[in-house]
Amino acid sequence: MISVVILGAGNVATHLYKALSKTQETEVKQWYNRSIDAINSFKNEVYITDDLSQLKQADIYILAVSDDAVKPLTKQLPFENRLVVHTSGSVNIHDMDKKNHRGVFYPLQSFSKSATLNFTDVPICIEAIRSEDYHLLKKMAIAIGSPTKKVNSEQRKVLHLAAVFVNNFTNQLYRVAHEITESEGAEFDLLKPLILETAKKVQKLSPYVAQTGPAKRNDKKTLNKHAKLLTNKHHKDIYDLLTKSIQHTHGRKKL
Amino acid sequence: MISVVILGAGNVATHLYKALSKTQETEVKQWYNRSIDAINSFKNEVYITDDLSQLKQADIYILAVSDDAVKPLTKQLPFENRLVVHTSGSVNIHDMDKKNHRGVFYPLQSFSKSATLNFTDVPICIEAIRSEDYHLLKKMAIAIGSPTKKVNSEQRKVLHLAAVFVNNFTNQLYRVAHEITESEGAEFDLLKPLILETAKKVQKLSPYVAQTGPAKRNDKKTLNKHAKLLTNKHHKDIYDLLTKSIQHTHGRKKL
Ligand SMILES: NC(=O)c1ccc[n+]([C@@H]2O[C@H](COP(=O)([O-])OP(=O)(O)OC[C@H]3O[C@@H](n4cnc5c(N)ncnc54)[C@H](OP(=O)(O)O)[C@@H]3O)[C@@H](O)[C@H]2O)c1
Ligand SMILES: NC(=O)c1ccc[n+]([C@@H]2O[C@H](COP(=O)([O-])OP(=O)(O)OC[C@H]3O[C@@H](n4cnc5c(N)ncnc54)[C@H](OP(=O)(O)O)[C@@H]3O)[C@@H](O)[C@H]2O)c1
Repeated sequence: MISVVILGAGNVATHLYKALSKTQETEVKQWYNRSIDAINSFKNEVYITDDLSQLKQADIYILAVSDDAVKPLTKQLPFENRLVVHTSGSVNIHDMDKKNHRGVFYPLQSFSKSATLNFTDVPICIEAIRSEDYHLLKKMAIAIGSPTKKVNSEQRKVLHLAAVFVNNFTNQLYRVAHEITESEGAEFDLLKPLILETAKKVQKLSPYVAQTGPAKRNDKKTLNKHAKLLTNKHHKDIYDLLTKSIQHTHGRKKL
Repeated sequence: MISVVILGAGNVATHLYKALSKTQETEVKQWYNRSIDAINSFKNEVYITDDLSQLKQADIYILAVSDDAVKPLTKQLPFENRLVVHTSGSVNIHDMDKKNHRGVFYPLQSFSKSATLNFTDVPICIEAIRSEDYHLLKKMAIAIGSPTKKVNSEQRKVLHLAAVFVNNFTNQLYRVAHEITESEGAEFDLLKPLILETAKKVQKLSPYVAQTGPAKRNDKKTLNKHAKLLTNKHHKDIYDLLTKSIQHTHGRKKL
């Protein structure tokens, strides 16, 4: 049984708490947050605290706090030689205070408190200074059903950046499509199956192979029709840049 | 029983043939293509032809041919006063020859011959000049399990444009993420669950509500970190434009 203390009470901490307290192989010994209100409703199922000096002994301390809070919080911990990990995509493992054994347990997903999420759909990127810690973290990930991958701090930074493209930027393209359709009285809802299919397609094919459409075909007639339809300058900028990008990828144009 | 003749043998025609010949409510009476080779392997299950003068009588003629071929093909048809529809997102209904009753049966999905696709995931945008034709087309869509929507030519053009954003452009963002990760020895595969989750999220939430990340939060520290990581000028242009776009949508910045 792996014993865990969770620090932080945001999106990631809350999902991890639920997953870790459900499985047999792990036990959440305590839940810390600097403001106790956020975890008060859990006080009947787990020890809660807002006092770092009251932290219990555990195998792993998970700091699921804002990126900027990771470093100072590792300094404030009133113990040493224990395994302390953070969950951030962009904080270097060496930013953590050396007095404890350090690790990273980065869940590559988009969490929000309200949405349920199955950890089988959450790859965990693991990093640790000591190999025994790496194996313990891997065991914890497997216990909640997650696939795992050994990822160093440089690779993790790059994954975090790539995640912005496939998550935030993709979502913004959905938003632009929403603006385009609604402004002309068409229904955004009709695009939802296509949105899903586009994401499903690259689960098996590479994005290179999956590409279709007027930009790839260099279908000038359609490209011109679209240029005329795009009245919003801002939408047009995105259209032009991504069309150029596709043509570059598929050998149609030099950038 | 609705009788249908399919013209064309590409991605859309092939998927429609399979779906329409499977259901009880519809019968594919004949399959035409200008080059017979493409449909030769079906000759034991359906009448095939490459000769327009041999077209049989049917309730609906579906022209699933290249956009540019729609108009000339409607002119070449050797009959009149029958229901003829095309499947294009961008061809106006009035571009079709008036000698027949005209309609549009536009499946809003991304088809490729190899991938299987369930028509329950294919919304059909229907347009017709005569209301009785509209109802017949709707019946045909329902027979293959598709949701339907009445969509005029202007709305259809806009949906086709929006589809480029959520399909081709989104796929290009996946491609950029692929380039970013692989160039640093990180694994694109780790992003696949996030890609799927991002698409699933907007099935229920609006893209506006679903947005998260450094651009929306205006998290300057992370934005700067990413700017430094982006060595490829072309990736950086996309990063900058979509970050600006998100900040515009969420009231952080004037464009
Ligand atoms: N959200 C995601 O999709 C996601 C995905 C992967 C990784 N991550 C990473 O996981 C970590 C947590 O993210 P999140 O989304 O769960 O954040 P969040 O919902 O914003 O919650 C942040 C938590 O950090 C605490 N905190 C902030 N500043 C603190 C400080 N100075 N000292 C102590 N605690 C402090 C907050 O405490 P209060 O409740 O008192 O404010 C809150 O409990 C971050 O490193 C993030 O990059 C997030
Ligand atoms: N693919 C999609 O995802 C999709 C989605 C929705 C709507 N659509 C629309 O559906 C229609 C067909 O698309 P598709 O992807 O199935 O096309 P495709 O795979 O490229 O097939 C085009 C078909 O049109 C025929 N054709 C081309 N020029 C012709 C001409 N001048 N006269 C007669 N036949 C001609 C071709 O005949 P040969 O075999 O002899 O070359 C071929 O059978 C287009 O209007 C497209 O915009 C496509």
